[in-house]
Amino acid sequence: MTEGFFITFEGIEGSGKTTQINLLAEFLKNKGYDVLVSREPGGTPLGEKIRHLLLDPQYESMDYRTEILLYAADRAQHVKEKIKPAIEQGKIVISDRFADSNLAYQAAGRGLDYEIVYQINDWVIDSTWPDLTFILDIDIKEGLKRARAQSFDAEGDRLEREVDEFHQRVREAYLKMAEKDRFALVNAGESIENVQKNIENIISRRLF
Amino acid sequence: MTEGFFITFEGIEGSGKTTQINLLAEFLKNKGYDVLVSREPGGTPLGEKIRHLLLDPQYESMDYRTEILLYAADRAQHVKEKIKPAIEQGKIVISDRFADSNLAYQAAGRGLDYEIVYQINDWVIDSTWPDLTFILDIDIKEGLKRARAQSFDAEGDRLEREVDEFHQRVREAYLKMAEKDRFALVNAGESIENVQKNIENIISRRLF
Repeated sequence: MTEGFFITFEGIEGSGKTTQINLLAEFLKNKGYDVLVSREPGGTPLGEKIRHLLLDPQYESMDYRTEILLYAADRAQHVKEKIKPAIEQGKIVISDRFADSNLAYQAAGRGLDYEIVYQINDWVIDSTWPDLTFILDIDIKEGLKRARAQSFDAEGDRLEREVDEFHQRVREAYLKMAEKDRFALVNAGESIENVQKNIENIISRRLF
Repeated sequence: MTEGFFITFEGIEGSGKTTQINLLAEFLKNKGYDVLVSREPGGTPLGEKIRHLLLDPQYESMDYRTEILLYAADRAQHVKEKIKPAIEQGKIVISDRFADSNLAYQAAGRGLDYEIVYQINDWVIDSTWPDLTFILDIDIKEGLKRARAQSFDAEGDRLEREVDEFHQRVREAYLKMAEKDRFALVNAGESIENVQKNIENIISRRLF
């Protein structure tokens, strides 16, 4: 393989993305691939600073536009500094969230104009859309229960505090995306082992 | 006056915006107006955090897209939290820089696509374009000399370190904008008192 491969994981809070990304990275490393794992927001030093602003509950009056633009700023830096160079070096890049999160959370979740959010993202990532995107789907009550159990703060971060209808809209946006070719829908309500198996089967058909 | 009035000041570094804004605010307050002075980046608590990221020399590898989006994020919050409410309360709002800075510095200065920068800004400010924009014009060598003399760091902040050609492109973009109706061009190479007088004459024709 001379050219890299770009995989992203999407899904609502508590869908188990981080666990599955680590398992997939191990699986691919064992097959001899050079793997880079990253995340959004926060894949770069500047992105980590932006991540703190985005998740800090003190900014609950954050304007929806501000929110989109901060995610997009983080993403632009992430693509330029980390994702593109790694793909060019032939690595498999796995990102925990990417542009589709903006479309699900900000366009669908917040009810903002899909067209402008898409346009900003398309410009931001400079045509670097993923080759494959896993959508980990889970019931929102189950997902949020898991997410809150892991949170440092019992009430959750700024996003986890959103009402159920918001997370439901996000889930539905992801389910709709999953109909398209680039996406693979995975039932994240099953055991960790089963989800892992399903993901490994899908990636094997694409890469080996 | 039941509706407010929105004034912005634009110009390259060292053109004397801050000094003139303070003088104009005093002048208008003495005439009995309720005046709010603000600035970009950094007109809100969240904006101040974003401002630090934007001006910090440690992020010199900042992607141009990231830079635009951080300015835009700051601006969205500024409009929602401060500018719009003040205008609705009938105040005169004076902002040190606004959307036009993005067009001059990022589109013209960095050579990025004007159309997308304009589109993002138009969406970001939610139609809140200024009623009047002063462009303080000065020779770039003179401006940068003044700016560096005021800077905490002898080498200047991230923007002040840009090469002369960059600042020249920014100045020319401002001069081109100044041909349009909303703008008033002021020669900032004159004495503080003369510049102040010119600004007061222009504002008097518009407001009294």
